[in-house]
Amino acid sequence: MSTPMSSQSPSAGGGPVIAIHAGAGRVPVGDDGEERRQGLLAALEDAAAVLSGGGSALDAAQAAVAHMEDRVDLFNAGRGSALCGDGTVEMAAAVMRGADQAAGAVAAIGRIRQPVLAARAVLDESPHVLMVGAAAEAVARRAGVAEADPSYFITDRQRGRLREAGSMFEGGTVGAVCRDAAGELAAATSTGGMRGQAPGRIGDSPLIGAGTWADGGVAVSCTGDGEVFIRVGVARLIAAWVGAGVSVADAAAAALDAVDGLGGHGGLIAVDSAGEVTMPFHDGAMPRGLWRAGQLAAVWV
Amino acid sequence: MSTPMSSQSPSAGGGPVIAIHAGAGRVPVGDDGEERRQGLLAALEDAAAVLSGGGSALDAAQAAVAHMEDRVDLFNAGRGSALCGDGTVEMAAAVMRGADQAAGAVAAIGRIRQPVLAARAVLDESPHVLMVGAAAEAVARRAGVAEADPSYFITDRQRGRLREAGSMFEGGTVGAVCRDAAGELAAATSTGGMRGQAPGRIGDSPLIGAGTWADGGVAVSCTGDGEVFIRVGVARLIAAWVGAGVSVADAAAAALDAVDGLGGHGGLIAVDSAGEVTMPFHDGAMPRGLWRAGQLAAVWV
Repeated sequence: MSTPMSSQSPSAGGGPVIAIHAGAGRVPVGDDGEERRQGLLAALEDAAAVLSGGGSALDAAQAAVAHMEDRVDLFNAGRGSALCGDGTVEMAAAVMRGADQAAGAVAAIGRIRQPVLAARAVLDESPHVLMVGAAAEAVARRAGVAEADPSYFITDRQRGRLREAGSMFEGGTVGAVCRDAAGELAAATSTGGMRGQAPGRIGDSPLIGAGTWADGGVAVSCTGDGEVFIRVGVARLIAAWVGAGVSVADAAAAALDAVDGLGGHGGLIAVDSAGEVTMPFHDGAMPRGLWRAGQLAAVWV
Repeated sequence: MSTPMSSQSPSAGGGPVIAIHAGAGRVPVGDDGEERRQGLLAALEDAAAVLSGGGSALDAAQAAVAHMEDRVDLFNAGRGSALCGDGTVEMAAAVMRGADQAAGAVAAIGRIRQPVLAARAVLDESPHVLMVGAAAEAVARRAGVAEADPSYFITDRQRGRLREAGSMFEGGTVGAVCRDAAGELAAATSTGGMRGQAPGRIGDSPLIGAGTWADGGVAVSCTGDGEVFIRVGVARLIAAWVGAGVSVADAAAAALDAVDGLGGHGGLIAVDSAGEVTMPFHDGAMPRGLWRAGQLAAVWV
């Protein structure tokens, strides 16, 4: 892996912090990094506003992801998601609250404008953790989450990409991890999946312990080759190690090494209960951002 | 937790071994334990035949689960699965091979006679790990896995149970963990889900790292309150600890304690690379069986 990036002390130390990521992978030719930079900054601002107002880590992580879902074509989530091979959009998202390890996740949905809000509805309103398809959409609908026609999510840009040859890896999954003023942690992840995937394929993003995790010790959100992240159990592995006393930076780096060992690529962001943040990723780029109370937000695209 | 059960030395020590479970929970009033005992023994025999013929751990674990799926009304998997609230059957299954952490899983399927074979088809024939619904059935169909009409899976016994008041917890998920003659590990799990669940709800069984796991150090299959097993990441947690040098019995017991800590109940079976087996479960019963090369099979119902 190249360019591991870790925010250690002196910046850490107890205050609220939010870190966000978009997808690891190669930056598209002709990509407008400035637009992505603005999108990341605005997502951080939404989350920071929640935290500065005394909001919870879960609300802040959700706010950052919901913002990125609504940024058309900048990220592979919500409107502008990567298209399945049949030209449809199937999205997935997960949220997890560290304090009680409550979780909600949705997959194979096509009618919810901001899938992370559907995941939150599953956490809040259902006895279940993971719901797929129409059942997931029904939970969101009952909770008053905004819907959209499936055509809303399909953009000309993604239609064009689907026709391109080459890798199916879209690499724009978004996520957020957060520590709030009370020291509690949360994670949120949202994705449009792999470009050209079969409808019904579910990757790591909505799977608790694969692409998303939060407990009392660490919150994690991942992006990359979803199948390999599932087979490594990346997010749960990091949490187990942090629970055993390994630093969040060392745990995250070792988990990404395990992904590498199975031929996978990607990246992740994680924050521990002390506010330490790590954002390692494999070669290429992983647009990401970091905000701490009392400091300027920083983004890397 | 009561009745932790661990098969330590002298029985362990290098030969092939297969352990199987049905669902943890209360034994139904009027239950015929003898029929269940015969079903478990026959499932062990099928797996033992694979192992004795030099077959792989994955093939053996799959054989045991496929047998239990075809035992009508004895177990909550395949024909006789618990019914969703709308009277339909939705099944899920997963397989994982320890040697390369390859995995396949299916969920929300209703047309595949033995769902574990669909999970195996996803492992063998698709680039993905988890497929749901019609897409999962299509992968199985292309691989030649036997189908059945959705009505095939619905039994009068389960229709009656759906009308009963009380807990939705069906508790008949089945699974197998295996160590073959080459020392390689595998796990397989299959379930009909929770009685009365919403179609589209996915529990821990098909989720790699929640209800099912295998790597070079340990193979795990779980049964119980699926949502809590997901929120604990039970199977991946055990594997992380075993990887760090904790005994499989201690790791499994501690992971079940974590389930207990979140108000969940259930059990699991696990085998490590040395052939040590542990089968802890919470109060009630967990029908289970164990076979080692050169020894008589043992079952507990």
